[in-house]
Amino acid sequence: MTNDSSSIRTPRVGVVGGSGYTGRELLRILAGHRGVQTRWATSRSEAGRPTAVRGLPYQDLGFEALGDVDLVFLCLPHGAAVPWMEAADAAEVRVVDLTADHRPGSGREEGVVYGLTERNASEIARARKVANPGCYPTGVILSLEPLLEDGLLAESRTVTVAAASGVTGAGRSPKPHLLFAEIHGDYRAYGLGNDHRHLKEMRALLPGVPVLFVPHLLPVPRGILETISVAVAPGVDAEAVRAAWTRRYAGSGVVEVLAEGAPALRDVVDTDRLVLSAIDNEGLAEPTVTLVTAFDNLGKGAAGQAVQNMNLMLGLEAEEGLRCRR
Amino acid sequence: MTNDSSSIRTPRVGVVGGSGYTGRELLRILAGHRGVQTRWATSRSEAGRPTAVRGLPYQDLGFEALGDVDLVFLCLPHGAAVPWMEAADAAEVRVVDLTADHRPGSGREEGVVYGLTERNASEIARARKVANPGCYPTGVILSLEPLLEDGLLAESRTVTVAAASGVTGAGRSPKPHLLFAEIHGDYRAYGLGNDHRHLKEMRALLPGVPVLFVPHLLPVPRGILETISVAVAPGVDAEAVRAAWTRRYAGSGVVEVLAEGAPALRDVVDTDRLVLSAIDNEGLAEPTVTLVTAFDNLGKGAAGQAVQNMNLMLGLEAEEGLRCRR
Amino acid sequence: MTNDSSSIRTPRVGVVGGSGYTGRELLRILAGHRGVQTRWATSRSEAGRPTAVRGLPYQDLGFEALGDVDLVFLCLPHGAAVPWMEAADAAEVRVVDLTADHRPGSGREEGVVYGLTERNASEIARARKVANPGCYPTGVILSLEPLLEDGLLAESRTVTVAAASGVTGAGRSPKPHLLFAEIHGDYRAYGLGNDHRHLKEMRALLPGVPVLFVPHLLPVPRGILETISVAVAPGVDAEAVRAAWTRRYAGSGVVEVLAEGAPALRDVVDTDRLVLSAIDNEGLAEPTVTLVTAFDNLGKGAAGQAVQNMNLMLGLEAEEGLRCRR
Amino acid sequence: MTNDSSSIRTPRVGVVGGSGYTGRELLRILAGHRGVQTRWATSRSEAGRPTAVRGLPYQDLGFEALGDVDLVFLCLPHGAAVPWMEAADAAEVRVVDLTADHRPGSGREEGVVYGLTERNASEIARARKVANPGCYPTGVILSLEPLLEDGLLAESRTVTVAAASGVTGAGRSPKPHLLFAEIHGDYRAYGLGNDHRHLKEMRALLPGVPVLFVPHLLPVPRGILETISVAVAPGVDAEAVRAAWTRRYAGSGVVEVLAEGAPALRDVVDTDRLVLSAIDNEGLAEPTVTLVTAFDNLGKGAAGQAVQNMNLMLGLEAEEGLRCRR
Repeated sequence: MTNDSSSIRTPRVGVVGGSGYTGRELLRILAGHRGVQTRWATSRSEAGRPTAVRGLPYQDLGFEALGDVDLVFLCLPHGAAVPWMEAADAAEVRVVDLTADHRPGSGREEGVVYGLTERNASEIARARKVANPGCYPTGVILSLEPLLEDGLLAESRTVTVAAASGVTGAGRSPKPHLLFAEIHGDYRAYGLGNDHRHLKEMRALLPGVPVLFVPHLLPVPRGILETISVAVAPGVDAEAVRAAWTRRYAGSGVVEVLAEGAPALRDVVDTDRLVLSAIDNEGLAEPTVTLVTAFDNLGKGAAGQAVQNMNLMLGLEAEEGLRCRR
Repeated sequence: MTNDSSSIRTPRVGVVGGSGYTGRELLRILAGHRGVQTRWATSRSEAGRPTAVRGLPYQDLGFEALGDVDLVFLCLPHGAAVPWMEAADAAEVRVVDLTADHRPGSGREEGVVYGLTERNASEIARARKVANPGCYPTGVILSLEPLLEDGLLAESRTVTVAAASGVTGAGRSPKPHLLFAEIHGDYRAYGLGNDHRHLKEMRALLPGVPVLFVPHLLPVPRGILETISVAVAPGVDAEAVRAAWTRRYAGSGVVEVLAEGAPALRDVVDTDRLVLSAIDNEGLAEPTVTLVTAFDNLGKGAAGQAVQNMNLMLGLEAEEGLRCRR
Repeated sequence: MTNDSSSIRTPRVGVVGGSGYTGRELLRILAGHRGVQTRWATSRSEAGRPTAVRGLPYQDLGFEALGDVDLVFLCLPHGAAVPWMEAADAAEVRVVDLTADHRPGSGREEGVVYGLTERNASEIARARKVANPGCYPTGVILSLEPLLEDGLLAESRTVTVAAASGVTGAGRSPKPHLLFAEIHGDYRAYGLGNDHRHLKEMRALLPGVPVLFVPHLLPVPRGILETISVAVAPGVDAEAVRAAWTRRYAGSGVVEVLAEGAPALRDVVDTDRLVLSAIDNEGLAEPTVTLVTAFDNLGKGAAGQAVQNMNLMLGLEAEEGLRCRR
Repeated sequence: MTNDSSSIRTPRVGVVGGSGYTGRELLRILAGHRGVQTRWATSRSEAGRPTAVRGLPYQDLGFEALGDVDLVFLCLPHGAAVPWMEAADAAEVRVVDLTADHRPGSGREEGVVYGLTERNASEIARARKVANPGCYPTGVILSLEPLLEDGLLAESRTVTVAAASGVTGAGRSPKPHLLFAEIHGDYRAYGLGNDHRHLKEMRALLPGVPVLFVPHLLPVPRGILETISVAVAPGVDAEAVRAAWTRRYAGSGVVEVLAEGAPALRDVVDTDRLVLSAIDNEGLAEPTVTLVTAFDNLGKGAAGQAVQNMNLMLGLEAEEGLRCRR
């Protein structure tokens, strides 16, 4: 550290709104990341309490804190990221926004790169502003886009996504229906009617694919499993689907394609991995393949992907800090 | 009880294989049933231990026990019901077989009435031999058959059933993957490939409907929730679906049609109810309705339906003993 | 209702604050109770929504509702029962107060009978005002008082109570530490330092017994299990303890004394039973017996005991409406 | 590997019986350990399947495998470690035995060092044979021994240990009472009567202390929390207890003494830490301090401690590979 040229200085990052489930997970990853220095994490309610980063308590800070960092993560309630994005822009600080505020379909996506890492790696590497994808769309788009691009989907057929998520996906602000005594032993569909707010994001990235998305709430803290049924074009089978994925995701340490079987939630919880699988179905007139995709909503579905994006934006090792080994 | 004419004698029943989850649930219902007398419950492994019926321990009994009862429930491992069915036939004892051994598609269904209560009530009332339906098929068939009959389904379109069940559906014999430490925090699809053994039963009852059935294992002890996506015929919507169900299930104390919203698992667990709901979907080219159907796999999915069938077979009050109130 | 002789009119009851966990459980019991008519249940937040009693929605009512009932249950937040008790007194309506406001040690216990049913049955039967015991004290006092009275405890020895409760014991108002994602997989001691608010009640009923009470929070919705270690007087053993309990609780359909073994939570959850057990310990210089006592915090620990008290106060069958069978 | 002095060769280790919960956890730690090379892991039932160590499948191996390693871990069913210990002795291979077979009180402890790391560090560093402590005793002995040595305990007073453990403590062989549907929502005391097999170990290490040990089974996969009530000598309080611990465990990265409050299970699960806390109690004639001690039964309670011992025996960094940061 004798020479202070910025090229060798360890990049410095900050976390705005670090006391929700996403922010805490992000700080957990940053605590083990050897390529960046976490300078601060803001939280009004938890100010003074320790974060996962040794020696770094939460602080109640405003925009002035941006002067101290090269990149900032926004882990705020949806809607609250807009002024921070503007302030970071003015301060010439890179941003990874984990809210929905600048995602495709939000109306504020202009000039912001969509941070689906495996899809947009080169744009992300050059971006100042990145919108981290929603949890459900991450799995749906990574599962379907290669099939769409390679023409493997039957035309105009509804693609049915039965998704199930752990309760941290609903955030940490206390609501009666998220109390332990309400969730224990329960399971339910929600967001019925195909108007979940994540659909805009899926539709923007999968133009022309009619997606029917039905989310369910699981009695587990974390993890998402998406069971996706797709009518396929003539001659297409699960093997062709796996081949399309393998071409697209070769080299990724985060996305894994199973040669057989399907992932369970416990294979991915507490990791930053996303696991893809495809199975042929018997006894149907229309050839249909079932895709089972699993990942941690707080890992690849939020904080893990945010760190992937940071690694690209700061020119660090692609998987530094990530929990990708089984 | 001074007069012993059989017309006023309380019917006597027996339970073969009463120590699994289904048998125990059945005995719990029978313990509160005022219209029958439970004479015995067999179990080799639990012989001598108490059942839910006061004063009735499990016994290790053979066919000779049939001489003592008017109706017998078979709660055996699949495959073991065949000789008991024959012995009961010879002894002229009525049978409700809760195994898969005599269900449609088993190859042994001849002369046995399929005990889907709301569908076959009059045949069941006259039957000596009834095959109690499988848990998953109960929900799928009750959901879809009225739509099929009324011509509400779009032709040749795959009907996707994403089903999720609590672990008692897998039985009580100890297997490593059903240990608490394996299931806690997990969720997974299983039976992938559309060849679950329950499909034969669904296909037999829903001829011409291409069903894609994907079951999942929930980290809860009991309950089934089925999320069914159906392309509908022109002009059909959720309201029409509800109307078809209401016509069919009017008067049932067990099957309930929700006017709005969808049932959660906790609405039906520990009851014998089955709750149907239908929701229109936005933004799809093909009009598609999502059905959410919930019930307890041990209630309407097994022991509750068995008692409904017994009530019909013995000429008792239709819902006597059942747990149907919310 | 043409004839108004009180001896044949069905008593009418009301529930104030019926939408918390205790109030909902009480309404569930009342829904199956054949000896009373539930006239109303108040709740501001749930007004208009259904209760467990068929045809009875929650209403937002004030003191004027007291004119319509013979007995009222108070299921309010602690502190809020005082004005209702006064209003009920003025209206000459009997009260079962499920809050801590009038319990022993509260400073407001004068003129109010302590509703520990098995201890004070005759006073309760004559009382207008009854303070329903706290959940933890119910188990501790029923376990220890017969031992104290019969001189079975070693003198001046600390009695250690390691208690564990499901989370409904903490109520239904949403707090961050009671969210599903916080409780799942966790277990902790709380109220450390021997100053839990329930201790006043235990000390008032167990004078001279030095109780060390350590509660723990279980990752289950309901149920309490108390593991109590007592140094016993010379010559006393578990058999003597069981004999003292049996003498005291003979005839009770609610309190059960196990001849051997100890109850588990699942033996009592969703019931109104309380199960007592005592086990001798090996290898200790001081003879010490371990008592394991289990019950449902919402059953015998709250709503079940409240209904026991109501049955006594209204001259009904002692166990009418209660869930006491295994 | 033909020559180079042993001082620079990476030590090689093997795991016997690696497919139970303890063995799998050990392999997970070894997978991230930079100071040793894991050569093999044996399992008959899982032979050919992957372990947590990349590229290392389970193998079905016999004693001959000992020729390939410097140290072997025995993760066998209790009773099965004796012949392996003899074979390792003959082969001059170091052993960490995670079974109960050579622990104090087993009758086979001669010549085997008791591997309670913080207590016996220097003997362990020189040992060829180490018996890894039982899970419950690890917490009880680390909590109490400093108090015993410093004379802080009141004489002849029963020390009450109310312990609770996750179900992995009962092992991975399938037993009906460990099925998910049995444990979910349950909680129970077991091993009643003060004759748990771990008591011999506690008594051997805490001579003269009358320990009353009551274990409970928690509906969680992992973690142990021990609530220990001790009558203290005149003038002793929680502060003095913390001081005794701090003197004893200074410098340990594994054992932590809380300055205030008490640990919850979630603070220690999935780590190798053990957290100690002490709280003064009010309102008791005999001064009594409550100790709350938490750790992961698979971490410090088994595999984590085994790796601590290995690190000492092989002269590696004390906390290499361990998960000790919050």
